[in-house]
Amino acid sequence: MKRIISLLTDFGLTDPFVAEMKAVIFSISENVQIVDISHQVEKFDISMGAFLLNRAVEYFSDGAIHVAVVDPGVGSDRREIAVETERAVFVGPDNGLMIPAARTQKILHVYELTNPSLMRKEVSATFHGRDIFAPVAAHLANGKLPRDCGPELLEYVDSPFPSAKIEGKYWISEIVHVDGFGNIVTNLSRELLKDSLLQKISLYVGGRQFSIRFVKTYSDLREGEVGALFGSHGFLELACREKSAAERLRVNRGVPVRLLRSNS
Amino acid sequence: MKRIISLLTDFGLTDPFVAEMKAVIFSISENVQIVDISHQVEKFDISMGAFLLNRAVEYFSDGAIHVAVVDPGVGSDRREIAVETERAVFVGPDNGLMIPAARTQKILHVYELTNPSLMRKEVSATFHGRDIFAPVAAHLANGKLPRDCGPELLEYVDSPFPSAKIEGKYWISEIVHVDGFGNIVTNLSRELLKDSLLQKISLYVGGRQFSIRFVKTYSDLREGEVGALFGSHGFLELACREKSAAERLRVNRGVPVRLLRSNS
Amino acid sequence: MKRIISLLTDFGLTDPFVAEMKAVIFSISENVQIVDISHQVEKFDISMGAFLLNRAVEYFSDGAIHVAVVDPGVGSDRREIAVETERAVFVGPDNGLMIPAARTQKILHVYELTNPSLMRKEVSATFHGRDIFAPVAAHLANGKLPRDCGPELLEYVDSPFPSAKIEGKYWISEIVHVDGFGNIVTNLSRELLKDSLLQKISLYVGGRQFSIRFVKTYSDLREGEVGALFGSHGFLELACREKSAAERLRVNRGVPVRLLRSNS
Repeated sequence: MKRIISLLTDFGLTDPFVAEMKAVIFSISENVQIVDISHQVEKFDISMGAFLLNRAVEYFSDGAIHVAVVDPGVGSDRREIAVETERAVFVGPDNGLMIPAARTQKILHVYELTNPSLMRKEVSATFHGRDIFAPVAAHLANGKLPRDCGPELLEYVDSPFPSAKIEGKYWISEIVHVDGFGNIVTNLSRELLKDSLLQKISLYVGGRQFSIRFVKTYSDLREGEVGALFGSHGFLELACREKSAAERLRVNRGVPVRLLRSNS
Repeated sequence: MKRIISLLTDFGLTDPFVAEMKAVIFSISENVQIVDISHQVEKFDISMGAFLLNRAVEYFSDGAIHVAVVDPGVGSDRREIAVETERAVFVGPDNGLMIPAARTQKILHVYELTNPSLMRKEVSATFHGRDIFAPVAAHLANGKLPRDCGPELLEYVDSPFPSAKIEGKYWISEIVHVDGFGNIVTNLSRELLKDSLLQKISLYVGGRQFSIRFVKTYSDLREGEVGALFGSHGFLELACREKSAAERLRVNRGVPVRLLRSNS
Repeated sequence: MKRIISLLTDFGLTDPFVAEMKAVIFSISENVQIVDISHQVEKFDISMGAFLLNRAVEYFSDGAIHVAVVDPGVGSDRREIAVETERAVFVGPDNGLMIPAARTQKILHVYELTNPSLMRKEVSATFHGRDIFAPVAAHLANGKLPRDCGPELLEYVDSPFPSAKIEGKYWISEIVHVDGFGNIVTNLSRELLKDSLLQKISLYVGGRQFSIRFVKTYSDLREGEVGALFGSHGFLELACREKSAAERLRVNRGVPVRLLRSNS
């Protein structure tokens, strides 16, 4: 049975960086099926990478190996790690990138990557994705265990994400992503909000107040109407039917969203 | 023998939507080889998606499963369907997207997707690509039959394409695509035109008249010359050597093209 | 054991051209693992394609088949070739595109592709990637030999690259690529420069003189500092920490770079 290796990077698709990682993987293991999650994370944007990885990993079957490389600190003294969870292993830099996704699967152990026999013979100072993370993942696919990678770490860099929280009569959240359709994704989850949602909700976004409808799906909205719904990953989204809600509201990632709690 | 599953969507490559579909497919079937046709269809542009799918399917071997998701009506009462042809099965929304491609292979049966055992347990209202179409395709790859998907439909939404036609002494056609090289693709096929082509042809595009040469291949054109030829898919194209013909003529998809019939 | 087929083109990812090549390959051979190197080479830019291919091939294991299609002369009398090296076979147009990469692996034989039994039955005048190069590669993966493709050629179109050279007290080189991070890649290799590098180097780029530090990795640079280093492929790069060096210096590919030799 083939092991799945997923790849998420900020390398883009023009340069051959991703191909070099794949070439290294296949030169070590035939036993893999590679799935690209995204290579278009904004350069060096650990938070965006963490968000996309977090959304995707739920749909992979158990035993997947997730390689993630958004790595402004490559070549510095930031460490390389493997994060073993109940369902997968994550391989990448120790900069918080993989922690939100890994945490949804319960983190069991974190290991530093120090075993040179799992790396390329010559490790460049600028491309650990190809020289360390790809070969480590391929060796894991071949049956090596996370603990073969190096010593266990008791602390590691935490998630780059803010958490949504209650402040008085408001939910205080933040736009954590604008997807390719212009849908505005917040960090307010269905679980957090379960007692607070009415048919009509009051939002404060970018200093302005909006009263919008809460709907079940995009096509419940009228042409041009901005509404709120839970996206397919369970987070509150603001959407506009067949249009970009982000353009309509002129907001971007990082903008705070305050939501009036219904029971207050 | 592995079954081929092709994917065509308007999801783009930045968000992890395509990866989630692939993760779902591989969690159900090991028996597949996935081929991406395009994920850069313009958002919600059923006609463009239908065009790209139509061009690509001819080159797949028999038994392919084509999943196509350009789906502005997701979550509404538009139906989900599987279209069985003499050579393949198409899986996607009932909005015309798959019909031109399927018709080139003779449509045998169309089934509504209603069998929940072929879908993800929780079907979101916003992402049927991941929750319905991907798992149905994976189960088909595992040996399920199109008729296992649900009841047969006797009518379905038809092709979004206009057809080329004769009007007096003209062929009346339309620009259905501008490819990445700037080549202008019309809906005039080699079969339709077989009696009408001379070495020099007269075109009316965007209100202007052009007299251009008909050539065999791009490199028969002089630097900067706009000419006409049959593209690799058998449709009349206007091309400019190593330049964008669409920029030269300042036209886009949807613009009508009238061609003087040679025998009139 | 599966054979690797790599693909490099200027087709982009919107049109289904790459998918058609893959469909043709899989219709001929099940015995392949396809790796995309890049499909975002600038249209018709043989030099850029040659550069990206050259960087990537080193990381593939022996026996790979590299298909490369940047082909402004398609349909003209430029020939189609297979280049056999000590480690791989390259399949594509005879326009220099594959020569720099092939040369790093020692070129053994060059064959013209003339055997129609290895091509699609109908060869279009505009898309040899799909109709000639893809099927030839698939047949090679199935066990055909390069010499089965056609007659051996004793001459072929050479590399499109300029070479770095010494002129008086300077190294004369050129910017051959700006990668997606804005790093400026020159054609000055580590081997050429081994005697010439000090901690501080003097550069003349685009008519201006710069005195910059030579460092080991990106993170050795201070925020906003432009420095020089050897990239992961062994060529001298100018980089700016977490910024685009190309934007800072306002230079592009093709711009000459003069480097003062340290021992002069």
